[in-house]
Amino acid sequence: MTARPANAHQARLLRLLRDGGPTSRARLGDRMDLSRSRLAVETDRLLETGLVVADGLAASRGGRRSHNIRLAPGLRFLGVDVGATSIDVAVTSAELEILGHLNQPMDVREGPVAVFEQVLAMAAKLRATGVAEGFDGAGIGVPGPVRFPEGVPVAPPIMPGWDGFPVREALSQELGCPVMVDNDVNLMAMGEQHAGVARSVQDFLCVKIGTGIGCGIVVGGEVYRGTTGSAGDIGHIQVESGPQKRQCACGNRGCLEAHFGGAALARDAEEAARCGRSPELAARLESAGRLSAADVAAAAAAGDTACLELIRAGGNRTGQVIAGLVSFFNPALVVIAGGVTGLGHTLLASIRTQVYRQSLPLATGNLPIVLGELGPVAGVTGAARLISDHLFAPA
Amino acid sequence: MTARPANAHQARLLRLLRDGGPTSRARLGDRMDLSRSRLAVETDRLLETGLVVADGLAASRGGRRSHNIRLAPGLRFLGVDVGATSIDVAVTSAELEILGHLNQPMDVREGPVAVFEQVLAMAAKLRATGVAEGFDGAGIGVPGPVRFPEGVPVAPPIMPGWDGFPVREALSQELGCPVMVDNDVNLMAMGEQHAGVARSVQDFLCVKIGTGIGCGIVVGGEVYRGTTGSAGDIGHIQVESGPQKRQCACGNRGCLEAHFGGAALARDAEEAARCGRSPELAARLESAGRLSAADVAAAAAAGDTACLELIRAGGNRTGQVIAGLVSFFNPALVVIAGGVTGLGHTLLASIRTQVYRQSLPLATGNLPIVLGELGPVAGVTGAARLISDHLFAPA
Repeated sequence: MTARPANAHQARLLRLLRDGGPTSRARLGDRMDLSRSRLAVETDRLLETGLVVADGLAASRGGRRSHNIRLAPGLRFLGVDVGATSIDVAVTSAELEILGHLNQPMDVREGPVAVFEQVLAMAAKLRATGVAEGFDGAGIGVPGPVRFPEGVPVAPPIMPGWDGFPVREALSQELGCPVMVDNDVNLMAMGEQHAGVARSVQDFLCVKIGTGIGCGIVVGGEVYRGTTGSAGDIGHIQVESGPQKRQCACGNRGCLEAHFGGAALARDAEEAARCGRSPELAARLESAGRLSAADVAAAAAAGDTACLELIRAGGNRTGQVIAGLVSFFNPALVVIAGGVTGLGHTLLASIRTQVYRQSLPLATGNLPIVLGELGPVAGVTGAARLISDHLFAPA
Repeated sequence: MTARPANAHQARLLRLLRDGGPTSRARLGDRMDLSRSRLAVETDRLLETGLVVADGLAASRGGRRSHNIRLAPGLRFLGVDVGATSIDVAVTSAELEILGHLNQPMDVREGPVAVFEQVLAMAAKLRATGVAEGFDGAGIGVPGPVRFPEGVPVAPPIMPGWDGFPVREALSQELGCPVMVDNDVNLMAMGEQHAGVARSVQDFLCVKIGTGIGCGIVVGGEVYRGTTGSAGDIGHIQVESGPQKRQCACGNRGCLEAHFGGAALARDAEEAARCGRSPELAARLESAGRLSAADVAAAAAAGDTACLELIRAGGNRTGQVIAGLVSFFNPALVVIAGGVTGLGHTLLASIRTQVYRQSLPLATGNLPIVLGELGPVAGVTGAARLISDHLFAPA
């Protein structure tokens, strides 16, 4: 894809076709607030670039039947979601439908070179299945703050070796297409906004509870990234001030992430197994040698009270932080997403209890707090959306 | 002022003239990204409406000298800031310069009818000084959440009698001009943005510590009000979970406002006076019969250790909340404003210590935390700005 929209009208047309699929010229006219002749001019120019193609006649609305147009069916985006412990790679159509998706374990601490090698291998494997010949653009999320205009991670606490690495430039050279980089949590929010539970919501928070904890902030339909790209970094909000507060990887003590999230939960689960508080976890630890949040979820589902207590305590602490954010930000929706959502409704109930108890009724009256809908494809969908937003904007 | 800008270009021209004062056509051309002929057309139309007038020749930039234009010198805005315990009313020019300003004590709990009577009396008094014949528009701030599009306070905890009162409509009828209503903290943020310490800052927080505590949120240069108008309601974020937590007026316990702010400080000061911890406060209580934040400030300035301790403890709690907001929102600037800023640098130092200690370096590295510059005219300046934004927008 070498062509780009020449003006804001063409960009808007491309985004409408991305979000709505094949659409008649008549219906586009209704939505664009453009004169019929101007719409025809802009559409014809897009058809000339090849970004848009004719797609048969639309259903009749009375009178002459209108022609459908759609985005070029051969356009392909690559969505990459680098997590702390695994990588998701997906190929999407121009309408951001997932055509192929792979997930592989990978420790982000192995550094950008090793991670890129694996990303490229996964992309090649997807291409070999025939879903794509090449990529017209790629979006990639990384689990840390990103200086967004340059696409460079900056001082990411859990990503040694990545600080200042030119992710955007390097990946763009390897793939031979434009690349955009963002924080993984922002992409998850964009994914849920595009195709998940936050569709058409303008102001919402998407709290990701994975290995760590972060928050995507959407204001007026756009991701808000903050002054230095670190907005939403709620894992390091203090939740404990007493003697119970724990050392966090960031150097402080008492941060939310030190007390909850995948890493904290695995550590607490191993402690519960070792000190005899959970026979279920002890059995799992003995057979696997280590525990994860998934073990806590499984044991809790089997009725293990120690695990239920761990989830409740974590949900309470997370809910306490979210209650503050709800008072501050007054969102229309809070989405809870990420790997730890396997903990399900016990977690959700604890979070809801804290928020509804602590925040004022005016902020919580019509506030849904819900689990994300897209699971493992939220991040890659958001990544494809990110690059399509970039490409479907005036050059 | 019956004329309104006919399109976005005219609106932009009016705002540039408001913010920059008299300006030459040549300089407006540089800033507007409009063709010379189009600029001339739009400027001439504004001259015809009378919103804009010629203002002599500009200084030479070489070649033919350009004509200055400016906003009509007779335009007058009324800015009203209703606080919990006092009312500020000011008259401004079209460039939002304060031409006259009055402050009078008033308890907002006396209800909208009594408050409006006083506001109108103050406005009449200002008019009688000759600074205004009438008003082209008025902005008013109230100390509680506002349903912004309708200009109606909604469930304001410290304003009994105001819930659902049609402030915008009622005041507009009384004054005979357009009125816009907002939360007082949002107006304070807009005031500091227009003429104070936040000039030209796009993303910042303005924390007002008055009788209560609230926060104005500016995103991309615009006030963010939240889904139901309650964004920034940080006075009810919980700061205490242990046995020390205090009952708050909102019905919860442990809220920031229950532990700090003008009301909490007055109560703590009276307690310190009565139980012998502060001879200085005891003397003031005996002579005045009651204490306020101003007494604490004066006693602290005289070296009273109990008062210094009260300020430090309050600053620590406020700083703890702001630290969380800084991690979440990653602002470019934090402004501390409101009546309690009389507590000065002891308060600021405690807040800074907490934020710089608790938030990550990426968010605090270049983050100034400063006192507001405008003091008692921040709110009325923001109120005038609010109505001018409304009037200087396409009708």
